[in-house]
Amino acid sequence: MRGFRTDLAMESIGDNNGHLDGVLVDRQQMGEISRTRIVIEDHHAAQVLSRPVGEYITLSCENLSRCDTNNRKRLVQLVAQAVRAMLPKDGQVLVVGLGNRNVTADALGTRVVERLLVTRHLREALADELVGKLRGVSAIAPGVLGVTGIETAELCRGLIEHVKPDAVIAIDALAAYESARICTTVQITDTGIEPGSGVGNHRLGLNRDTLGVKVIAVGVPMVVYASTIARDAVTNLMEDYGLMQDTTSPAAELLLKKVSESYLGEMVVTPREIDEMVLSVADLLSEGLNRALQSKLDAETLHTFLHG
Amino acid sequence: MRGFRTDLAMESIGDNNGHLDGVLVDRQQMGEISRTRIVIEDHHAAQVLSRPVGEYITLSCENLSRCDTNNRKRLVQLVAQAVRAMLPKDGQVLVVGLGNRNVTADALGTRVVERLLVTRHLREALADELVGKLRGVSAIAPGVLGVTGIETAELCRGLIEHVKPDAVIAIDALAAYESARICTTVQITDTGIEPGSGVGNHRLGLNRDTLGVKVIAVGVPMVVYASTIARDAVTNLMEDYGLMQDTTSPAAELLLKKVSESYLGEMVVTPREIDEMVLSVADLLSEGLNRALQSKLDAETLHTFLHG
Amino acid sequence: MRGFRTDLAMESIGDNNGHLDGVLVDRQQMGEISRTRIVIEDHHAAQVLSRPVGEYITLSCENLSRCDTNNRKRLVQLVAQAVRAMLPKDGQVLVVGLGNRNVTADALGTRVVERLLVTRHLREALADELVGKLRGVSAIAPGVLGVTGIETAELCRGLIEHVKPDAVIAIDALAAYESARICTTVQITDTGIEPGSGVGNHRLGLNRDTLGVKVIAVGVPMVVYASTIARDAVTNLMEDYGLMQDTTSPAAELLLKKVSESYLGEMVVTPREIDEMVLSVADLLSEGLNRALQSKLDAETLHTFLHG
Amino acid sequence: MRGFRTDLAMESIGDNNGHLDGVLVDRQQMGEISRTRIVIEDHHAAQVLSRPVGEYITLSCENLSRCDTNNRKRLVQLVAQAVRAMLPKDGQVLVVGLGNRNVTADALGTRVVERLLVTRHLREALADELVGKLRGVSAIAPGVLGVTGIETAELCRGLIEHVKPDAVIAIDALAAYESARICTTVQITDTGIEPGSGVGNHRLGLNRDTLGVKVIAVGVPMVVYASTIARDAVTNLMEDYGLMQDTTSPAAELLLKKVSESYLGEMVVTPREIDEMVLSVADLLSEGLNRALQSKLDAETLHTFLHG
Repeated sequence: MRGFRTDLAMESIGDNNGHLDGVLVDRQQMGEISRTRIVIEDHHAAQVLSRPVGEYITLSCENLSRCDTNNRKRLVQLVAQAVRAMLPKDGQVLVVGLGNRNVTADALGTRVVERLLVTRHLREALADELVGKLRGVSAIAPGVLGVTGIETAELCRGLIEHVKPDAVIAIDALAAYESARICTTVQITDTGIEPGSGVGNHRLGLNRDTLGVKVIAVGVPMVVYASTIARDAVTNLMEDYGLMQDTTSPAAELLLKKVSESYLGEMVVTPREIDEMVLSVADLLSEGLNRALQSKLDAETLHTFLHG
Repeated sequence: MRGFRTDLAMESIGDNNGHLDGVLVDRQQMGEISRTRIVIEDHHAAQVLSRPVGEYITLSCENLSRCDTNNRKRLVQLVAQAVRAMLPKDGQVLVVGLGNRNVTADALGTRVVERLLVTRHLREALADELVGKLRGVSAIAPGVLGVTGIETAELCRGLIEHVKPDAVIAIDALAAYESARICTTVQITDTGIEPGSGVGNHRLGLNRDTLGVKVIAVGVPMVVYASTIARDAVTNLMEDYGLMQDTTSPAAELLLKKVSESYLGEMVVTPREIDEMVLSVADLLSEGLNRALQSKLDAETLHTFLHG
Repeated sequence: MRGFRTDLAMESIGDNNGHLDGVLVDRQQMGEISRTRIVIEDHHAAQVLSRPVGEYITLSCENLSRCDTNNRKRLVQLVAQAVRAMLPKDGQVLVVGLGNRNVTADALGTRVVERLLVTRHLREALADELVGKLRGVSAIAPGVLGVTGIETAELCRGLIEHVKPDAVIAIDALAAYESARICTTVQITDTGIEPGSGVGNHRLGLNRDTLGVKVIAVGVPMVVYASTIARDAVTNLMEDYGLMQDTTSPAAELLLKKVSESYLGEMVVTPREIDEMVLSVADLLSEGLNRALQSKLDAETLHTFLHG
Repeated sequence: MRGFRTDLAMESIGDNNGHLDGVLVDRQQMGEISRTRIVIEDHHAAQVLSRPVGEYITLSCENLSRCDTNNRKRLVQLVAQAVRAMLPKDGQVLVVGLGNRNVTADALGTRVVERLLVTRHLREALADELVGKLRGVSAIAPGVLGVTGIETAELCRGLIEHVKPDAVIAIDALAAYESARICTTVQITDTGIEPGSGVGNHRLGLNRDTLGVKVIAVGVPMVVYASTIARDAVTNLMEDYGLMQDTTSPAAELLLKKVSESYLGEMVVTPREIDEMVLSVADLLSEGLNRALQSKLDAETLHTFLHG
């Protein structure tokens, strides 16, 4: 455990894969896509990993935004499957797109929400047989605290009291520890959003405790903090040179702290093509979510609702 | 009264200027800017004009988006003055940007909200003397029913129960009857937003009845409906030629109805430069609103909060 | 021939369908899509129709931006087929996206260019067998005269002298006479772009005379001028009432002129959803063009070049 | 000289400030703004610094995008002054916005071009006295090689042969060595754009050799490469610990190379707020350029041309 900032359960577990009491890890490789399921079973394990008890599904492939048509189809299915398994079988869902639409690396939540099939307001107008097939979906991308003056959790609470959804899905851009995770990994969890997480550093969490309903969180790493990169380069060097026996000693910690602080926490590392990547990943996730949410509609009917 | 669709009180009044019982009309010309104040005093007048009892300030000049620096300064002041006079002296304000950010002519509300000084979340962190000067402002541009699945009025109600503002300001793009009104007129009213108004045709109104607090509405016409133009051309012709004695006769009405319906209600008329105009008008309105909302801050402090 | 402004050959021909000497008209209906091929064969016919000698393919369906998957596939094929038939069998192609990217209704050309597979610079790096299959394509969306200070035709001439393409494809947003044409019609012609055409009113034409190579123009109507709507409403009325025996008489012309001029030429009529429509039509056209340009690549290889 | 990638002459010089033969360095502090003028006088110095002979003006302040109104005014003046001094006194100018408009950190050139007063096409229509005051300015943001298939230098050459400007101004987003330079420094040079420079890594240079006219380059650092940050952290550590006597020894070089390569060259470091910063810096630069280019117009006339 290196203590670097990451929003991925998979990175918190690191090399301890499965050796931790109270943590189940199950990995499948499907061609170029790997699917890892982590279950944190008890509060002891939750404490060690600084992550809530619950299920974390991680889907990885070399490049989410530029994979070939077969891998893309399979990824859409795997996203749909994982979300569907966490959703209540029936009942309304509110989708919340987190992050700031005017900050490229933080706009993923907003872009996904723009692509969703929203149905809550349609149901009165539809024929009875279709209403039975159509789940009520509402969606909002409210903007971040600095733009609204209102905490996202607070804003959602007010909304939930009126809309009364049976579950919430929150979409967010994440920060990772390894730059190789950017745009290559989807994390889907039933534990909601933790305080301090995401590119935008949410002050409050969004979960059953704060919102009163189940919150499924779907996220993709879009940045690594610059301080993480500097710290990481230095740690590797110290290990290579046996410079300090133990990189977790106070002296080493002090040095690493110094290195991190010399890079403003606000500096983030992203691929140059992040603008295009965000749109492409938003297409992929929204396709998966639309299928998970409207599992009783066939593909053509779903298409007609969305584009016809 | 021609019965055409318009969101401007000034156009409803038409040529009856001041001759209507229960309606006060007061017009001032200041250089190239004219300011008209209409007060609908009682329910009879409200019924005749199909508009709620209340005050309507209309500011007009040849082109809001391309006026010279002096006219622009004066317009900002006049907007600030009119809004300030309608606001409670102290207390929090929630600004709601109505409309669809992805439809150019309907994006005015969203663009204004993006440019506001939002302070509600800052107040804990500020020195005491500044807190006394700073009004708590929160802001949201929630998106339209088709995008969220939630009525804007419903969404605002949930929000207001948590944020508890003392007043709401709603910003919206309007439809006018005359194309010459597009981007040349600002309407500021203390009656809120009426059902069926705006480019996006709000299903429910936003006013004291639906939201439980005072609602000040600020709007600028951005479109004329195509059917209005066709109807208008034909009416003029019929009058010129004395074609039908009375253009409000059933026969004439039938003809006009036919003309209107041959143009899809969805077709709107806008200037080709609407994209640029919306941004420019959003700058102007947000400057006026920021001044009205933070009337105890001097210009440089306001600038520092916004840009520094 | 009513003399209204239109960029569609199909509308110029009007009800004279095939009765004009020197004009061939051939129409096919394929399910919900109709395909009309007009050939203006000689200079006399060209003069009567105020359009150059050449071939005009028009594809129509109810809504290009919201058709079902089958119609969309067929439209892509028909666009590809028509363009391919006009292109030289081999040789480089330069695609020019006309119009102003900051004016929604005029941005079609720019949006198509953004979605093209551009290959001219790749060919050195590719394996020999692939080079044989890949046509050299370059693309530019230079912006309009008011933004660059340079006539598009002038700018293209300079470029063509260096790039030396064997043909040019110019993409543009058009103005129609009937509002029902907006986003329902694609026109593909080997005559290039005429002076005064397009939403942006190009001052010079782009054709073999001005550029020295064959110019294929692909366009979709995005606006109707407001004056056209007013004029049209009045003409219909005059005809219905036998108001003037001959709507082309000087008196009638004067009246119509008066009606037209009371609506600023700058006002345009578009659907409210024009923003979304432009993106959707750009997807459709670019897909057709990519297939026409790279007819030796199979679909998966084309996809990999574009997205993988 | 550390050999890291930077586009700033100031960083190449590093701590050798003025001690290098053939290099003049002159620094002025004006309140919170510092202005450094570097002149590389001969080919020997040019070789040592890997930069062409010429003049480099660097303006720095804590944050270009969020400075107070006084500092902003002074910066606009200093940009205008530096560019004006390098421009020919009269004659046409072509401004080229380099970079990719769809990559946030690379879009600076495009955003500046959008804000320029373009006049080349107006001059026929203007009164004689105004023509004498108005310099002919044209502008283009052609897009990068991957988008057009045409090298920017090649594209400009074709254009220049037709437009025949007396000078070119090229605007570009730069890469720096220190992250503290991002959005805090403007570099203005009469040496043009070097091959391999800019966020987008131009393959060819834009200078008098390739274009045949004087090229003034204006740039602001928008990224640091992730490899630079890793390398830098490690170098500091090695120096602190005396790990290798000489950080330029082959062993040290090998180590640093390893560190750099473990971070993809494509990963870039930027502030999270880069989207907003680019627009704000584009405002500042365009204001400076408009003044430099139209030095005979007073502020109000310039404003009227731009906004009225």
